[in-house]
Amino acid sequence: MRDVAIIGVGMGRRWGRYEGSLIEMMAEASLDAIEDADTDQIDALFVANMGAGRINNQTALGSALIDYLNLFPAVGASIENGPASGGTAARIGYMAIASGIHDCVMVTGGEKMRVAPGPVVTDFIATMSHPQAEYIYGITFPALGAMLARIYFNKYGVTSEDLARIAIKNHTNGLKNPHAHIQQKITMEGILTSREAKINNPIIADPLHLYDMCPVTDGAASIIMCSMEKAQEISEKPLIRLAGTGQGMDTMAVHEREDPTFLKAVTHASDQAFSMAELKRENIDFAEVHNAFEILELAELESAGFFERGKAHLAVRNGETEIFGRFPVNPSGGLKARGHPVGATGVAQLCELVWQLRGEAGERQIPNNPKHAYAVNFGGFGNNVVVTILSRV
Amino acid sequence: MRDVAIIGVGMGRRWGRYEGSLIEMMAEASLDAIEDADTDQIDALFVANMGAGRINNQTALGSALIDYLNLFPAVGASIENGPASGGTAARIGYMAIASGIHDCVMVTGGEKMRVAPGPVVTDFIATMSHPQAEYIYGITFPALGAMLARIYFNKYGVTSEDLARIAIKNHTNGLKNPHAHIQQKITMEGILTSREAKINNPIIADPLHLYDMCPVTDGAASIIMCSMEKAQEISEKPLIRLAGTGQGMDTMAVHEREDPTFLKAVTHASDQAFSMAELKRENIDFAEVHNAFEILELAELESAGFFERGKAHLAVRNGETEIFGRFPVNPSGGLKARGHPVGATGVAQLCELVWQLRGEAGERQIPNNPKHAYAVNFGGFGNNVVVTILSRV
Repeated sequence: MRDVAIIGVGMGRRWGRYEGSLIEMMAEASLDAIEDADTDQIDALFVANMGAGRINNQTALGSALIDYLNLFPAVGASIENGPASGGTAARIGYMAIASGIHDCVMVTGGEKMRVAPGPVVTDFIATMSHPQAEYIYGITFPALGAMLARIYFNKYGVTSEDLARIAIKNHTNGLKNPHAHIQQKITMEGILTSREAKINNPIIADPLHLYDMCPVTDGAASIIMCSMEKAQEISEKPLIRLAGTGQGMDTMAVHEREDPTFLKAVTHASDQAFSMAELKRENIDFAEVHNAFEILELAELESAGFFERGKAHLAVRNGETEIFGRFPVNPSGGLKARGHPVGATGVAQLCELVWQLRGEAGERQIPNNPKHAYAVNFGGFGNNVVVTILSRV
Repeated sequence: MRDVAIIGVGMGRRWGRYEGSLIEMMAEASLDAIEDADTDQIDALFVANMGAGRINNQTALGSALIDYLNLFPAVGASIENGPASGGTAARIGYMAIASGIHDCVMVTGGEKMRVAPGPVVTDFIATMSHPQAEYIYGITFPALGAMLARIYFNKYGVTSEDLARIAIKNHTNGLKNPHAHIQQKITMEGILTSREAKINNPIIADPLHLYDMCPVTDGAASIIMCSMEKAQEISEKPLIRLAGTGQGMDTMAVHEREDPTFLKAVTHASDQAFSMAELKRENIDFAEVHNAFEILELAELESAGFFERGKAHLAVRNGETEIFGRFPVNPSGGLKARGHPVGATGVAQLCELVWQLRGEAGERQIPNNPKHAYAVNFGGFGNNVVVTILSRV
């Protein structure tokens, strides 16, 4: 199996609402990655996207993006794996290189969601729930997030204030991330305890408030991976090795899980990635986790093994997950502040890991030269999870 | 790079209209493949599908099918590459095994299209055309097929009778294929020259008649691949090696090609696959080609290098491409008679190759123990093509 490095990353313009086409948006991120890698010798492209066929009237995005960027003779295809599409596409990119079929692969994720009305987006997201047991009964993902939060509240003493603390931390980080959709300072008083907070931060799905969940965002992100051998030959930046990849599964319907606070797929995917990377949890310097809902930031950190079960919120209270804390989590602002264009998210997590590992994260740079980084990309409501570990060589 | 074998294939019930869900349909094909392989030790599943998000209100098919079949801890994802989704998923399955990440991979393709009205299907297919240069002007794929046929008529003297001959050959083969959607004998008089023919076989897109194109079909197909080492250990059937895989691209918009009769992507993909398999064109005993329109059967055979340009129709006239001819093409009946459930097609082609190479194709068995077989899976209108070569070990 050949070693694989990430030699270029890019995210195009600031995420939010994109007025051009999905392909133009993905092209901007791809060109940024090409510029960063200082090479356009791409053999293959994997596009991560969940909903273009449904909400943008477009399929075959691999063909479209290669045509638009004139990357011929590169070959392309699309990967769909719900919100884990980005991490999955990177994992497949890894396989393409490790197998020897390709030397240099671009993985570009993108989703242009704000073109659709809110209820259409909520329905589109729900198409990844269980077709007979969830979708047809009208389940929404905010509702699933709310039920998980309720269990956490009852079982572990987590409070609305704890969720707000995570949101405040992520907004603080997002303010330092030029790519973040949400660049807005928030305070506990402003979103939870003042008279105005009830209006600004209404309950969406009890007990979750607006600020407990990610926004609907247009955005794209791109990485360029190649064999380590080739990377050493052509790259002049610090080399970032894809040290570990893991994928885990759980029942599709959440109610079939014995304990929904235990995200089995996160544990399995993490175990595989750590084993492959030959690293331990304590070797990891920081993490990007898939906080589509802030409650997931806690549950994923615990299921990944970074904190004991039911204890991650105590670390948040102590400031341990802040950029200058013991174990920074979502220095990018995460899905909460950077935004969550579904197919792009898993790729953007890897962009952030690379920037931080290279020491290029500007104002949000994690101190002390981080060397090993972890990302968890969470598909469905935890039924399909991809974990990636990157290491500075 | 590890050698990879296909150890199980299956297609579920006869293709046509499927009354159950997409997942049930894909599960039936998958279970057939599991039974054929006599193993359910599956590490990963790649689902090939183009339109479930749009026409079946379902995404994250990898999670759904693993959950339905209880294949845990297998991990899954979906591959979308237009009509080449199936071949692409098999190619990615190959990478997954060759890279050493997985030992045993299931690739299941499926599309449930007949649930949507005709115009919705036509529009859904058109979402893979060029978004600015073709789709918004109302291009349809039958229209693209018609334009290609017109050039062939003018340039090479191909006639409507030649296309009808291909249809008759494919219907004859389909009658011997229990999985084929269309099991109907047709004659030149019945579809082209009699008084009734004008009613039964109307012009759809001039010069193409109804019988010059594939039907809209629900269907699924599945293959199980594993490392050759593992195959030798667990399989008791003749071993079928995935000897070559290639992928080629062309401009997305057909009018940007210098000569639309020259399917560059087919040539490139074929050259790669032959080079990897260390075989020549004359080593191939038979082929499955992607005849969504009968004119494509000619164009692909020529661009793949099996016939000189502009000459394949002469071979058809001589009966060379019939099951008992010199070079059988589409013994399954191809897309024309087996049907074309988009995501399933590329996988079904590989099922047919395996059955023929094992000598299990029943009434449609190609004589003389074929050893090397070729499949071309054609995405877009030829902008993204995957070629697979299988060899009996």
